[in-house]
Amino acid sequence: MSQDCIFCKIMDGDIPSAKVYEDEFVYAFLDISQTTKGHTLVIPKQHTKNIYETDATTAEQLFSRVPKVANAIKEAFNPVGLNMLNNNEEAAGQSVFHLHIHLIPRYGSNDGFGAKWETHTDDYSNEDLQSIASSIAEQVK
Amino acid sequence: MSQDCIFCKIMDGDIPSAKVYEDEFVYAFLDISQTTKGHTLVIPKQHTKNIYETDATTAEQLFSRVPKVANAIKEAFNPVGLNMLNNNEEAAGQSVFHLHIHLIPRYGSNDGFGAKWETHTDDYSNEDLQSIASSIAEQVK
Repeated sequence: MSQDCIFCKIMDGDIPSAKVYEDEFVYAFLDISQTTKGHTLVIPKQHTKNIYETDATTAEQLFSRVPKVANAIKEAFNPVGLNMLNNNEEAAGQSVFHLHIHLIPRYGSNDGFGAKWETHTDDYSNEDLQSIASSIAEQVK
Repeated sequence: MSQDCIFCKIMDGDIPSAKVYEDEFVYAFLDISQTTKGHTLVIPKQHTKNIYETDATTAEQLFSRVPKVANAIKEAFNPVGLNMLNNNEEAAGQSVFHLHIHLIPRYGSNDGFGAKWETHTDDYSNEDLQSIASSIAEQVK
């Protein structure tokens, strides 16, 4: 637990939340800003800042529960789709620095959530793509 | 393997890809539409349509590799942030029906990617939130 972390305080019961699921490793609760109805956050009990700093075991524990929670949202509200979003670092939209997965049920194209994709297919040749992939592959540890 | 699945064909080598990482359970390669430079897809080798249909073991195997790939992207291109997005069902933006996780490195607010959040904080009272949470919690299996 991190002393200054609002999500650690929520898990500890010091701050109230609308709990959806809890077990030994994972806590799930409604985002207080419901982008869509049923918008849920799934977090590891182990405090970790973001995906970069998350060890493989914590990632496993966290994500093994995601299908269970996603299916419960589906059963409860019958959305037409569901997005899973995770923001790492402020520039990517992270505002609480305890790793969290947004599960956002979708009810249509004007339901409050959407991703802006400006694809650049034509900017990259096959050689460019192979070069980018190699640059990443070389850094896999 | 699913016969008609483009991602199964990519893993099989029948369709070329810019590979970033591969092991027994997981394959990672560049999205051919690079929303931002280094935009990578991480997929399970086990064909599964979406998060709903993914068993806990496949979810574990898939996500235990995500921090590794995310860190490699960070090392390679030093982005200012990184979003992880997964779309389930066509209404949520899914176009290939083999579970895939987008890792989208961020380089600023006008880099081509963004999430549209229209929050509705004021629409939900605490009672509403508890009621929504209970509806989901009752469906957790």
